Amino acid sequence: MSNDAHDYTEIAYSVTDGIATIVLDRPARLNAFTETMAHELASAFARADAADDVRVVIVTGRGRAFCAGADLGRGAGTFDAGEAAPEFGQVDGVPRDAGGVVALAIAGCRKPVIGAVNGAAVGVGATMTLPMDIRIAADTARFGFVFARRGLVPEAGSSWFLPRVVGISQAMEWVATGRVFDAEEALAGRLVSRVTKADELLPTAVALAREIADNTSAVSVAASRRLLWSMLGAGSPWDAHRADSQLIHALGKGVDVAEGVTSFLEKRPPRFPGRVSKDMPDCVPEWPAPPEDS
Amino acid sequence: MSNDAHDYTEIAYSVTDGIATIVLDRPARLNAFTETMAHELASAFARADAADDVRVVIVTGRGRAFCAGADLGRGAGTFDAGEAAPEFGQVDGVPRDAGGVVALAIAGCRKPVIGAVNGAAVGVGATMTLPMDIRIAADTARFGFVFARRGLVPEAGSSWFLPRVVGISQAMEWVATGRVFDAEEALAGRLVSRVTKADELLPTAVALAREIADNTSAVSVAASRRLLWSMLGAGSPWDAHRADSQLIHALGKGVDVAEGVTSFLEKRPPRFPGRVSKDMPDCVPEWPAPPEDS
Amino acid sequence: MSNDAHDYTEIAYSVTDGIATIVLDRPARLNAFTETMAHELASAFARADAADDVRVVIVTGRGRAFCAGADLGRGAGTFDAGEAAPEFGQVDGVPRDAGGVVALAIAGCRKPVIGAVNGAAVGVGATMTLPMDIRIAADTARFGFVFARRGLVPEAGSSWFLPRVVGISQAMEWVATGRVFDAEEALAGRLVSRVTKADELLPTAVALAREIADNTSAVSVAASRRLLWSMLGAGSPWDAHRADSQLIHALGKGVDVAEGVTSFLEKRPPRFPGRVSKDMPDCVPEWPAPPEDS
Repeated sequence: MSNDAHDYTEIAYSVTDGIATIVLDRPARLNAFTETMAHELASAFARADAADDVRVVIVTGRGRAFCAGADLGRGAGTFDAGEAAPEFGQVDGVPRDAGGVVALAIAGCRKPVIGAVNGAAVGVGATMTLPMDIRIAADTARFGFVFARRGLVPEAGSSWFLPRVVGISQAMEWVATGRVFDAEEALAGRLVSRVTKADELLPTAVALAREIADNTSAVSVAASRRLLWSMLGAGSPWDAHRADSQLIHALGKGVDVAEGVTSFLEKRPPRFPGRVSKDMPDCVPEWPAPPEDS
Repeated sequence: MSNDAHDYTEIAYSVTDGIATIVLDRPARLNAFTETMAHELASAFARADAADDVRVVIVTGRGRAFCAGADLGRGAGTFDAGEAAPEFGQVDGVPRDAGGVVALAIAGCRKPVIGAVNGAAVGVGATMTLPMDIRIAADTARFGFVFARRGLVPEAGSSWFLPRVVGISQAMEWVATGRVFDAEEALAGRLVSRVTKADELLPTAVALAREIADNTSAVSVAASRRLLWSMLGAGSPWDAHRADSQLIHALGKGVDVAEGVTSFLEKRPPRFPGRVSKDMPDCVPEWPAPPEDS
Repeated sequence: MSNDAHDYTEIAYSVTDGIATIVLDRPARLNAFTETMAHELASAFARADAADDVRVVIVTGRGRAFCAGADLGRGAGTFDAGEAAPEFGQVDGVPRDAGGVVALAIAGCRKPVIGAVNGAAVGVGATMTLPMDIRIAADTARFGFVFARRGLVPEAGSSWFLPRVVGISQAMEWVATGRVFDAEEALAGRLVSRVTKADELLPTAVALAREIADNTSAVSVAASRRLLWSMLGAGSPWDAHRADSQLIHALGKGVDVAEGVTSFLEKRPPRFPGRVSKDMPDCVPEWPAPPEDS
């Protein structure tokens, strides 16, 4: 286990046996979100993306909350950027939303991401989970897209992500009411795929991560993550056909497919040699570039 | 309570304590849809959009039906526009579909809309509910996308809305069979989010509306409605990041956010001063303009 | 019943009373997918599209599997196209993916398609079902988007189809794990709409097909299929309003609508005269053209 936790002050980052775990780590403040945490999360996801020994990322919170939302320590002025220099650059002449910086870093990571929601996930604590691939919750979790109760709108790109994850009607009900709801409502509304007892949350997340890490090609999973998410924005299946013709052609002569087919025919676990850092085909779809002035 | 019902002949419109209620009001004809009703519905949604005392809109039907579909009083010629002047202007050289005029008026309203389906919602009676944010049904409700049984196709923009509300597979099953189905099937297929006893339908709708009206910023909800629906058509979360960076920046220095944060910290209900008519930031996304020749 | 089965070597094709049944027919190889099968499937869907006596298409597998995936008879080199001439033309300089050729043929067919999954549907056996409108499964069915376990990515346009059928989170869980799962998990994840006993699978598919064939206008269903699927790629409901204004205008003066309204008012089954081959309005949306160099 590599322990890089000392690099960060508001999160912890560690890697064990192919699984990176990112812990939101301000338990005394219910892991409330700050600009520092945003920087550290963006850094951690870039690190996980680049590291070949990371196959899957798990995100959870220390203590009884997952993330209680933006830190309101500045009170009524919390969301007024005023004359401060923009922390994350600008887009179209305004400071980039810090939640969106994190959400797009998660979306941009090529390793699959599992959100293990242990407690309150409110505001940006809820929206930051939406670009994750899988969300599971402890029965102690609560969720709230509470922005309309604070005079704001959902951020972190969630107006794009939330309707694609739970459907537009469920999204609008949660956003328009700003209601805080429990894990069962999250499950019924398909925000999370399963609910566990609190002490089974991390073991369940790890089991899912192991199912990925132990059975699949890292290059395949990384390319698939880009492919599926980017095709959410494509107008027709012809776009997918062009992209996956390229990818099947490139991967079909690669090293992993030979091992994948051979191990299957030999009924043994695969040992894929491909590395995301070196063996990704050039034709893997990319997210759009960041806005020009950021 | 303002009672503006006298303005309309085929619907009733009233506002009570922040909630506008629109009643389809031709009970002797099972609230069958006419061009007059289309005009009145488009007018009513524009009125609700403009009125700062309206926070939420509820739509229901008088009597035992919600809306039995297009009025077939003209028999076999009902859907042949013939040489008649187009009632709602033209698009691309043909008369605009009246159901679509209503659907786009509902989509364009910045106040959230709750459909309370009390009985049969068939044809345009079903499709007109799709741009609403939340649909609930009495156990006496029935639904039918019956167009293929009449020689038509689903209208009112429903080819765009229905797959986004219930998924493409459920949408195609209902459209290809043209089947009339009950409230339980609508619930299982996620067309409605809950089913109530008939006499609990309106109280349930009002409770949902109150949850919105009593707890949230009108400006936030209006901006969020535009944001979420318009991002359904956006190609990537970067589009949302640009839009919500603008909105968070604009709202973050506004009047509602101060009250939202302060009331939360003081653990008291908020009293948001913002008005949709005057305090909407310029950067709120708009739907595309109507077609040129309409 | 017309029996055209002799035209094909790896599928069987027959038409009975308005229903075309396509059987994947290599039971000794668990109906594994080959280039020959791809050609025959593309041919069969084009034939069903063109034949006015075909109202609905059912696809199922002979024996205990639906389709076990690509035939791995070539072992480790199965997916390496090498210097072979491209079987289905090229796109962007690489051979077209054979699974995508089939998927786009299914998408392009104007008759609704019901997948009746009788056993293992793995790899392309799973992805080829996604452009079908309705999928039902026997309790003996199993599914697997196993590509990452073979060193590949999901093909057959499935990066576009799968998130639209089951949502992005469920899609990513199945794709990232590459897990093989049973019919109950497919039902819970909305990949199939119902699960039957094995001997009730085809009767259930036929009953669904009859519900379509016996009650609806062929032209309406064909136009609706194009309309709903193509609007999945449209940016706003205004696009749908333009398209369905055209279609309602064209169909509203056609022969089927008169019969549809009259039969409804007379409370008798309709007998629609319209034929897809001759009576489709010009304004029905088309899928994009194939890539230029194919």
